[in-house]
Amino acid sequence: MTLFERFQKKDPVALSKFITYVENQSKDYEKFLSRIYPMTGKAYRIGMTGPPGSGKSTLTDKLAQKLSSQDRTVGIIAVDPTSPFTGGALLGDRIRMQALSSVKDVFIRSMASRGSKGGLAKTTKEVILVLDAFGKDYIIIETVGVGQVDLDVVDNCDTTLVVFTPESGDAIQAMKAGLMEIADIFVVNKADREGASNLIYELDSFLDLKRKKDNSFGKCWEYPVISVQATHNIGIDLLWKKIEEHKKFIQDNGIFEKKRKAQIKSEIKKLIENRIKEITEEKVKESFDIENIVEEVLAGKDDPYSASERFLREAKLI
Amino acid sequence: MTLFERFQKKDPVALSKFITYVENQSKDYEKFLSRIYPMTGKAYRIGMTGPPGSGKSTLTDKLAQKLSSQDRTVGIIAVDPTSPFTGGALLGDRIRMQALSSVKDVFIRSMASRGSKGGLAKTTKEVILVLDAFGKDYIIIETVGVGQVDLDVVDNCDTTLVVFTPESGDAIQAMKAGLMEIADIFVVNKADREGASNLIYELDSFLDLKRKKDNSFGKCWEYPVISVQATHNIGIDLLWKKIEEHKKFIQDNGIFEKKRKAQIKSEIKKLIENRIKEITEEKVKESFDIENIVEEVLAGKDDPYSASERFLREAKLI
Repeated sequence: MTLFERFQKKDPVALSKFITYVENQSKDYEKFLSRIYPMTGKAYRIGMTGPPGSGKSTLTDKLAQKLSSQDRTVGIIAVDPTSPFTGGALLGDRIRMQALSSVKDVFIRSMASRGSKGGLAKTTKEVILVLDAFGKDYIIIETVGVGQVDLDVVDNCDTTLVVFTPESGDAIQAMKAGLMEIADIFVVNKADREGASNLIYELDSFLDLKRKKDNSFGKCWEYPVISVQATHNIGIDLLWKKIEEHKKFIQDNGIFEKKRKAQIKSEIKKLIENRIKEITEEKVKESFDIENIVEEVLAGKDDPYSASERFLREAKLI
Repeated sequence: MTLFERFQKKDPVALSKFITYVENQSKDYEKFLSRIYPMTGKAYRIGMTGPPGSGKSTLTDKLAQKLSSQDRTVGIIAVDPTSPFTGGALLGDRIRMQALSSVKDVFIRSMASRGSKGGLAKTTKEVILVLDAFGKDYIIIETVGVGQVDLDVVDNCDTTLVVFTPESGDAIQAMKAGLMEIADIFVVNKADREGASNLIYELDSFLDLKRKKDNSFGKCWEYPVISVQATHNIGIDLLWKKIEEHKKFIQDNGIFEKKRKAQIKSEIKKLIENRIKEITEEKVKESFDIENIVEEVLAGKDDPYSASERFLREAKLI
């Protein structure tokens, strides 16, 4: 049996191998993606973000266990903010992966973000496609909760959760972090701790403005704030109910299709851009003595703006 | 007197206008940058990053006041993680800017990061050049302390500070956040609070590994951990001393020049890439019915990989 046949027969080892293949952008991986593309489009994508230490991993695991107990298959992509300087994943993730590997039909993959500047690793989108083609019902994408506007999450997920804890700072900080804008569901984890009710109140006050303003699709989403205690499995059922409500909401109101179209569009553009970037890099290498130009710029005899214009003209691109 | 003459005569109003001009990427702004480029290269760039709430702003202000009292001129760029959905800056920054505006020779500019995915706003590099050409001795670039590997900071600054507080979580979280790798100087702010000594100990233990490993330039930098209480002006002198030591260290060991060269190189590449991106966007618009292709992909009759390849072939780019 070929590896691809094994993949089609839902062999997790084949899945793992193809993910590595795509992640490493090995030879002809784009042809592979082109081949599996018709098999995609069925998985529902849940984004999980929030500040470091908010308990995203625990929450993801509890959701995965719940889904597994309902005979639904789950793929988890945990984007690991591994430094581009050191490489390698952290021990904690290894331990976690071992624990989850025993849960039925849950597949977890940790990905290093590798200096990619968005919170998502460079090939996350592609790995989502592989998990989707494999037949996973739900894909949970857990990102570096960065406080930064993780637009990638919005772009690639159907329902996005932001996880806060009473310790993660007040609502103003959350606003500053831009997390408030990207989420569909707000989770207050470790809700038994001091400051939880205050945080919920602040989140709710801020969301009231958003709830009123948000009528871009005619129908309004409630933007719920859900209290959970992930480690004690408290609140997971309600959270899951809200995720399903949001799923229904976006499907009923045409938002789901709109999102998918936007994803496809940006994917095509990205692919074209990346290739053109590669082609340009080659051209620069071939016909542009960049080291020399850098010396000239440093010496005050040239500047980056004139130099780049010159290159574009010489390469007949403008 | 023209605006440019006023800029050359160090009129802060002219500075402010040119920053806005560059920030908005208004007509011919690249020509302006090309013109001022020979006037740049003298300013020393200090990066200030750290988790939200760690007191980066206060620390920046204290450093600026110190520099001002020594007759050194300072430009501050405070990158504000304003959401791309709402725009607009937060009230706190406005108040702060008013307070600082009375300090001699300190110019502060708040920039929205506007959906740019790195922690730095899109035109931060260009604004640095404007402040440099204006004649600022020091430029402090304060970024969204995001926990995410803010490589942009490393790329654009000469000395990078990371600010932690005892509340910002343990050292493991900091490691996870990738902040440990990008900084030259580690600051523990609010050092009178509980947990400070523990945090310093953890930072130091981690840095010991880094200190041993780091010999990429033959000479080793000490990676100091400095305790401060920014609001009470405690520790600022020592911090400043360490910044000057680091400045001397990188200048004496050729690292400064190496950094500048890398910055220029990446700037030229970026400029070329951006223009090519624009050109491609136009080409796609002209000759590629992307809406129709998206429909085909959604219907399972096409896929992004084949579609982008087709475009590149048709545009004779490959």
